[in-house]
Amino acid sequence: MSDEENLVDPSHPRYHSLMIRKKVAAAGEKGMLADSAMIAHGRGEAFDYLIGEQTIPSALAATKEVAARLLRARKPVLSLNGNAIALASQEFLTIASQLNCPIEINIFYRTPERMGALLAHLKLMNTKLGLDVEILGGVPDARIPGLEGPRGACQSSGIFEADTVLVPLEDGDRCEALVGMGKEVLVIDLNPLSRSSKRGTVTVVDEVTRFAKNLIQIIPERPPATEWNNIQGLQSALNHITETMANKFV
Amino acid sequence: MSDEENLVDPSHPRYHSLMIRKKVAAAGEKGMLADSAMIAHGRGEAFDYLIGEQTIPSALAATKEVAARLLRARKPVLSLNGNAIALASQEFLTIASQLNCPIEINIFYRTPERMGALLAHLKLMNTKLGLDVEILGGVPDARIPGLEGPRGACQSSGIFEADTVLVPLEDGDRCEALVGMGKEVLVIDLNPLSRSSKRGTVTVVDEVTRFAKNLIQIIPERPPATEWNNIQGLQSALNHITETMANKFV
Repeated sequence: MSDEENLVDPSHPRYHSLMIRKKVAAAGEKGMLADSAMIAHGRGEAFDYLIGEQTIPSALAATKEVAARLLRARKPVLSLNGNAIALASQEFLTIASQLNCPIEINIFYRTPERMGALLAHLKLMNTKLGLDVEILGGVPDARIPGLEGPRGACQSSGIFEADTVLVPLEDGDRCEALVGMGKEVLVIDLNPLSRSSKRGTVTVVDEVTRFAKNLIQIIPERPPATEWNNIQGLQSALNHITETMANKFV
Repeated sequence: MSDEENLVDPSHPRYHSLMIRKKVAAAGEKGMLADSAMIAHGRGEAFDYLIGEQTIPSALAATKEVAARLLRARKPVLSLNGNAIALASQEFLTIASQLNCPIEINIFYRTPERMGALLAHLKLMNTKLGLDVEILGGVPDARIPGLEGPRGACQSSGIFEADTVLVPLEDGDRCEALVGMGKEVLVIDLNPLSRSSKRGTVTVVDEVTRFAKNLIQIIPERPPATEWNNIQGLQSALNHITETMANKFV
């Protein structure tokens, strides 16, 4: 990133969005991300722009449901990819500590270098925060049925045996495969039309940093799980976008 | 880009979008793009996804108007940034040759290395295609009023003196500054709500490769310019998106 790109004016209307972007760029430079991660982040930025770069009411309701499902779970796990770790590693370590559950690093384009960089980053943050969260993913010993190649690798004590998996920014194929294993899959995705959003048990249409900060606040309240209508939540997010667009100009 | 990322299955529902993405990644590896270019491409991908990865009727009408305005212009120029060159250098060279006008490379985050890589790429393509298009931007000798720093640099025989400028994927500030100079500014932008889209004289809400291929077909038809209502075109694009979203689930 050039010096010029590094300067962000706090008065810029999209200051928070630009600061989040800088986190992704910095993680890319540390070798934590696949090339496609920047593009994926840009897609998310566009949807966040359309929902107004804010936590909309249906997303807050979904976040409460996610908290309830994680608290109810027998064996929950937070499945984090490169972008989730780049954006909110501190927050997810705090959440895992609140829930006393492991984090499993699970990346789509797995290379030893990228896994090493992500493991090192999370372990460093774990120590910095004085936490003792179990970090899985480095030694995969099981497979998610139906996924070919390295993207199906997972750890038996983590994702494989979990009954409830939190998947921020998950690939559609993997989300479907986890649902197919009978798990509760809790999705964070800014695109309400994505396959992950549609297949998830509970989908939060929100930016991952905002979601994680909200979840930290909500977990101590120990909300009860409800009969969740995920499709209704997604339509509500779409309606928020279309209301922004309708009669914008004429 | 890893080997795994390079494999794109032609049966994938988003095959064309993924192939376009590969072009951006390849240009990044050649040093032609700023770090933010991948993120900008991702934002575009999201909007393209929302319009159905197709040229919608209002975009085709706007493309005809762009052809008419370029043909009518006394001194047109195609202002290309890194992403536009990465995606459609061959098409833009063809268009410049059809119009007998120059291309000016005009990038937001200007470094000598990036300008050099872009100039070299365009000149190589020029030769490969057997064309003799004038490529400007390497020796800026004028400034766009109101823009600070290197992003205001331009060439007097190109953008500075042009009456009509085609700007695919332009930054909002620069679009406004060009309009402020009294030029006709022809914008290609997938986000109908962007400042560039709103400030342009004629805005085409379409993916830049599809736009350029359409323009090549339309220029020989020599369509006449009309009284163009740009706001109506933008609202039409927004309506297309909202119709896709309305009652998607319920």
